[in-house]
Amino acid sequence: MARSTSLSGFTEWLPDERLVELHVLDTLREVFEAHGFASVEARAVETIDTLLQKGEIDKEIYGISRLQDDEASAGDARLALHFDLTVPFARYVVENAGHLAFPFRRYQMQKVWRGERPQEGRYREFTQADIDIVGDGALPFRSDVEMVVVMARALERLPLGDFRLRLNNRKLSEGFYRSIGLEDTAAVLRAIDKLEKIGPEKVAAELAETAGATEEQAAKALKLAEIRTDDTSFVEQVRALGGEHELLEEGLAELTEVVGELERRVPGRVVADLSIARGLDYYTGTVCETVLVGREALGSICSGGRYESLASTGKRTFPGVGLSIGVTRLVSQILKDVAATRSVPSAVYMTLRTDEDWGAAQDVADQLRARGIAVEVALTAEKFGKQIRHADRRGIPFVWFTDAEGNHEVKDIRSGEQAPADPQTWTPPFEDAAPRVVPVE
Amino acid sequence: MARSTSLSGFTEWLPDERLVELHVLDTLREVFEAHGFASVEARAVETIDTLLQKGEIDKEIYGISRLQDDEASAGDARLALHFDLTVPFARYVVENAGHLAFPFRRYQMQKVWRGERPQEGRYREFTQADIDIVGDGALPFRSDVEMVVVMARALERLPLGDFRLRLNNRKLSEGFYRSIGLEDTAAVLRAIDKLEKIGPEKVAAELAETAGATEEQAAKALKLAEIRTDDTSFVEQVRALGGEHELLEEGLAELTEVVGELERRVPGRVVADLSIARGLDYYTGTVCETVLVGREALGSICSGGRYESLASTGKRTFPGVGLSIGVTRLVSQILKDVAATRSVPSAVYMTLRTDEDWGAAQDVADQLRARGIAVEVALTAEKFGKQIRHADRRGIPFVWFTDAEGNHEVKDIRSGEQAPADPQTWTPPFEDAAPRVVPVE
Repeated sequence: MARSTSLSGFTEWLPDERLVELHVLDTLREVFEAHGFASVEARAVETIDTLLQKGEIDKEIYGISRLQDDEASAGDARLALHFDLTVPFARYVVENAGHLAFPFRRYQMQKVWRGERPQEGRYREFTQADIDIVGDGALPFRSDVEMVVVMARALERLPLGDFRLRLNNRKLSEGFYRSIGLEDTAAVLRAIDKLEKIGPEKVAAELAETAGATEEQAAKALKLAEIRTDDTSFVEQVRALGGEHELLEEGLAELTEVVGELERRVPGRVVADLSIARGLDYYTGTVCETVLVGREALGSICSGGRYESLASTGKRTFPGVGLSIGVTRLVSQILKDVAATRSVPSAVYMTLRTDEDWGAAQDVADQLRARGIAVEVALTAEKFGKQIRHADRRGIPFVWFTDAEGNHEVKDIRSGEQAPADPQTWTPPFEDAAPRVVPVE
Repeated sequence: MARSTSLSGFTEWLPDERLVELHVLDTLREVFEAHGFASVEARAVETIDTLLQKGEIDKEIYGISRLQDDEASAGDARLALHFDLTVPFARYVVENAGHLAFPFRRYQMQKVWRGERPQEGRYREFTQADIDIVGDGALPFRSDVEMVVVMARALERLPLGDFRLRLNNRKLSEGFYRSIGLEDTAAVLRAIDKLEKIGPEKVAAELAETAGATEEQAAKALKLAEIRTDDTSFVEQVRALGGEHELLEEGLAELTEVVGELERRVPGRVVADLSIARGLDYYTGTVCETVLVGREALGSICSGGRYESLASTGKRTFPGVGLSIGVTRLVSQILKDVAATRSVPSAVYMTLRTDEDWGAAQDVADQLRARGIAVEVALTAEKFGKQIRHADRRGIPFVWFTDAEGNHEVKDIRSGEQAPADPQTWTPPFEDAAPRVVPVE
């Protein structure tokens, strides 16, 4: 096979980097399952109709088609790769509603594809890790609180450095806009969503143009978006802007509860940030973005919110709340600070004295494996120095020797210490049993 | 979202079925890692050029393209979804050779896509689990032995019922064909590969037509393909057919070693089956297929073999040996015999006396979670009977009650037994801690 070049926007990790990604995925799974979330895996492929129902995203979609299409498949629906895990999950819920127990909580860790121009932190293929709780007809607001707590706890377990969950509530924003006479709240949200990118002047101009805002209304909408508190004191600041509306009250109460509970359970990780809008139209309450402190320019590593009617059969509606981690983006950052202690699972490298010893070496290895110790057996009886280098290059900490009389010794490559060992009982120190993820020195 | 119908050939599991699939994937990972295999994940997308280098597979490929393609991407390489994990892995090895330690052993568990007509056991999207060992320049034959032993051990850990690894060796077949004067061994193999499908008469006709075989040569080639032994006695049967060739001797020695070692380490699971040819041209030695006993018609659930030059940079060649499990096909069979004990990870369902108790209930749940117990907390203080039914429908074995005075009790839903419990110490029985996969009654 001729050497092919990498494709831009399609990242692949080396084995030691993949171990860091696995550590992230395993940790997320552990936290999600501890909170009762069940694993779901959706097919990677949807009909284009299903994907386009969310609108405004078509240019990012990768369509798929058989290279040698024949007549028989001409009647098939047009297919494409999913661009997130929310739309497929909504379709899954509707399709399987009769077999699911609601409220249904699931996690899903899969690849998604977007035909975007690749750049730092943006990929054409990447892994997402989502959690959602979906109700049948209704879903208590407490699930919003639980969702952000679970995600904050999961993120705390990762070697991320400091991070902030930036929270807002659509009801709060929309209620406020209505209270000052701006009725096209979707247009206002779309303009406010661009604040970080284009700045307040241009947002004000867009508010005038697309939402019919007066100068005063635009100024007030921008004032609201300036509010940022790391506790529930945002309430007073909103009140100081005036404005009264039922939705505003609901939004204030909900955001207060989420921020308060987060502050109590995962202290120091939450900011009420009333500029957070989230582009997608389907959010109806809580909205959340997450940034790494000091790496805000990277964008959000975990986003989502409450949606009242993403999934619906017509008769039945399934409201939900969900958050999604961009795992590939996260791992690309983590890898600047941490590394795996070795590139392979093996804790022990079993050397060969002669090629004919291979079967016996496998027998010894099996005794260790039976006790959960990962072992690689050499394939060739090269000089011991060379075999030790094989282990060293992989970062395997222990090398095993068996002499002609069947005596066993184990050498710790790092210290050079070597001692007799019994394959029935010898065990590596706990911290060497599996590859660990440690800070880069 | 309107109800969309399922796509034929794209399977999705319900949560309890997904738990069985997870059990399979976790078990495979555990066995692979115990033998020193490192995880690799390749991008799902390859250039069409890379995929077509294997030939004869183009009609099965799904090409991908951005729905709204613009000029900027017109110069991009044509892309497609990979149809197996071997070709992407070969590309990965060549691309990253400078960063890998050889012999390099990796496992890879990912989805692949094929535009085939869906039928029982055939999918358009499915998960494969592969292991390969790849050398730099050379790879000792012992890796073939190790490969089949590791896979047989992995399969033994799954709730599969009885299975057989059917083994052959390309050198043996090719050497034999040459010894009887058939030089176009690829044509002979292609014909023999169809034996099970079209029967000996038609194979004989094809041998005459495509490989120029005389009636006697065809009869001998078919005689060889009839040999099937569950130990190394195939050697005498081959010798009885006559024929001498260096390659034949090599093949006999190699197959003897693999079968002998398998028989010793994983007794009763191996058959030397000299009809096994494997369609793909790149195999050069050991070839293997695996069938479930009594479900042979399903086809092979685990196949592969030795390839001398799948991966090459021109200067360097990377020989390898690998086996691939069709996980989706396997799980679809396993699900006829086994089921998960519940559909969610939770061992405990925490009830609510009042909605206001939710925060306190989460505190209690956290005490259990800190000790590794998965807990779901009710979202609404419905009548206890209804809350218990919520747990029961998910198969959660234990329901937790906290009264107004803060006294705790746990009820085993199955027995109805209820007893006081301390959140700091209470632990479910070992067999209830996580969902298990058990025979269907």
